[in-house]
Amino acid sequence: MVEIRDLDPSPRLLLGPGPCDAHPRVLRAMATPLLGHLDPEFVRILDETQELLRQVYQTSNPLTFAISGTGTAGMETCIVNLIEAGERMVVCVNGYFGQRMSEIAQRAGANVIVLDRPWGEAFDLNQIRAALERHRPKVLGIVHAETSTGVLQPMMGLGALCREFDALLLVDAVTSLGGVPVAVDAWGADSVYSCTQKGLAAPPGLSPVTFSPRAMETIRRRKTPVQSWYLDVTLLQRYWSAERFYHHTTPISMMYALREALRLVVEEGLEARWVRHRRNHLALKAGLEALGLTYVAKAEHILPVVNAVRIPAGVDDVAVRKRLLGEFGIEIGGGLGEFKGKVWRIGLIGYNSRPGVVLQFLGALERCLAASG
Amino acid sequence: MVEIRDLDPSPRLLLGPGPCDAHPRVLRAMATPLLGHLDPEFVRILDETQELLRQVYQTSNPLTFAISGTGTAGMETCIVNLIEAGERMVVCVNGYFGQRMSEIAQRAGANVIVLDRPWGEAFDLNQIRAALERHRPKVLGIVHAETSTGVLQPMMGLGALCREFDALLLVDAVTSLGGVPVAVDAWGADSVYSCTQKGLAAPPGLSPVTFSPRAMETIRRRKTPVQSWYLDVTLLQRYWSAERFYHHTTPISMMYALREALRLVVEEGLEARWVRHRRNHLALKAGLEALGLTYVAKAEHILPVVNAVRIPAGVDDVAVRKRLLGEFGIEIGGGLGEFKGKVWRIGLIGYNSRPGVVLQFLGALERCLAASG
Repeated sequence: MVEIRDLDPSPRLLLGPGPCDAHPRVLRAMATPLLGHLDPEFVRILDETQELLRQVYQTSNPLTFAISGTGTAGMETCIVNLIEAGERMVVCVNGYFGQRMSEIAQRAGANVIVLDRPWGEAFDLNQIRAALERHRPKVLGIVHAETSTGVLQPMMGLGALCREFDALLLVDAVTSLGGVPVAVDAWGADSVYSCTQKGLAAPPGLSPVTFSPRAMETIRRRKTPVQSWYLDVTLLQRYWSAERFYHHTTPISMMYALREALRLVVEEGLEARWVRHRRNHLALKAGLEALGLTYVAKAEHILPVVNAVRIPAGVDDVAVRKRLLGEFGIEIGGGLGEFKGKVWRIGLIGYNSRPGVVLQFLGALERCLAASG
Repeated sequence: MVEIRDLDPSPRLLLGPGPCDAHPRVLRAMATPLLGHLDPEFVRILDETQELLRQVYQTSNPLTFAISGTGTAGMETCIVNLIEAGERMVVCVNGYFGQRMSEIAQRAGANVIVLDRPWGEAFDLNQIRAALERHRPKVLGIVHAETSTGVLQPMMGLGALCREFDALLLVDAVTSLGGVPVAVDAWGADSVYSCTQKGLAAPPGLSPVTFSPRAMETIRRRKTPVQSWYLDVTLLQRYWSAERFYHHTTPISMMYALREALRLVVEEGLEARWVRHRRNHLALKAGLEALGLTYVAKAEHILPVVNAVRIPAGVDDVAVRKRLLGEFGIEIGGGLGEFKGKVWRIGLIGYNSRPGVVLQFLGALERCLAASG
């Protein structure tokens, strides 16, 4: 039997697409002794977390809460609640997470129509209008910040377009919330999910979600039960409302973490936080371009929080990432799917979006590139 | 806008059915800075956690790991992977969590046959044999420790019986793992799920599960995909094996917590831990009986970790629990389902199974009963 030692991980700077380093105040919050999941003091924490989440999502949706799972559980929650078997869903796929959305929709029994776009590009409204016109789906699913390609999808106009064709708008905000503007009500989005380990600078483990009254009305009119009991928002709503009816045991410590992370966002101010992320992104971008690296996305669609850049010809992907981690304790992300071996993904998100981090990373990358070239 | 203050919960002693107080070493582990979910050091942590889980589950099943959700997510995982639409599943229901199992199985499309037994009783092998003989189900589901009634189900002989009728044995060990013997291989169980916030003395948020090679073979032969992508063990297995293929972002801090909690179990020794739980339970039982309280379960089926006792006639359920919490900071559980208002559930689990806790609780309860009577 192997001896299993004290937990003592090496120091890391997590500059991949996520998890990113949690804010020290968030880590500390997690060491707080537990409350019961029906304790009046914990119920107040739930109320506060919902109030903070509404501010950060920029929504007045009453049903705004956290799923007890990671971002993918949030994705599955939105899909299985909105979709009944045989119903049509158009999924916009221009990267790995659009593909995942279409896979999950298929497993929910949806009649999935994939709207394709090359990896690294964004969708335009005309392409989406044509698909809505032709297929008249119940739901349109789209990724706001495609983590696999570093593309930020413009959202304005999409909600009105979906309403024109009586479709619900489902948005993946996993990599955008807390780092770039996410405006659920202004977008006219009906169902949005995110995660804790990126722009919110908490550990992974919960998925903040929000549902518009229109989405909830659709769910209330379902003819069949939601296939997942764990993710059924009609049941979850009874816990996440004044009723506080027991459904499952909430991850208490992770809720402490999420609440603290959201407090930090609101203390900083949404606008100030987006400006900080953009400023540090621009510094990083200037440095990367000075090193000869180019972005995957067109200038107008660059996602500032996950910088997806092409690996220069002749550079050994794995060797560079191994050296960054081994010598400097810095993690960056490799490419996913068709970008494997071709792209690096450099996250500058949440707590890690700081000028000192930019300098430290550029210095380390320069050395690793020199050693590899 | 309400001011949202520093996290500063009142001191609590969590003596309900769970969450129970996490061990201080576990709380501390959660404040550890994050590693990436594919970092070689984190991969080692996953390996160690799996090795520790096998020891605690007393199994050699290769596929022994943690689902990124609570115990209910573990329940849903086992069901949706083992069952395809239209297949027969017999669910033994003698309490709230058996009912939940049958509800989830129905949503997975199972042809569910409920085997009933009054709340507070255990099943005997003859009743189960008759059901297997008559219905020839693919899966038999049973709860080892019924948290709603405080009944411990005898398990010996059940695995052989299921094999005789070629049924898979699915066991809910949510409230037993780490507090009373759970012997997956000796039982001949094929699929078992548990939680982190009870006998393991960690916060809620993960669900340790294990699948026998026989269960995995059945899953490999499925004709239809598992309805949940998030909970699909064939996909999860690719991450929880040498391949370490990305599926979703593991809740890093919760994994730190689980690993530390399991280390504590193994350091204490399984046998010593069960003895400790039994000894403190007997002290509590003597005290409760001296106060005139009686157990719901028959003597031979009493679950030592969740003591379900009848609320004495004339005593105000809510007033007593409110006073215990408000005056003494002690949480106990009320009754669930048909036991609501009739039963208290007093957990003496994990870190809280200590002689001092027994005395503290009995003293507080005596005062609250005197004030209420």
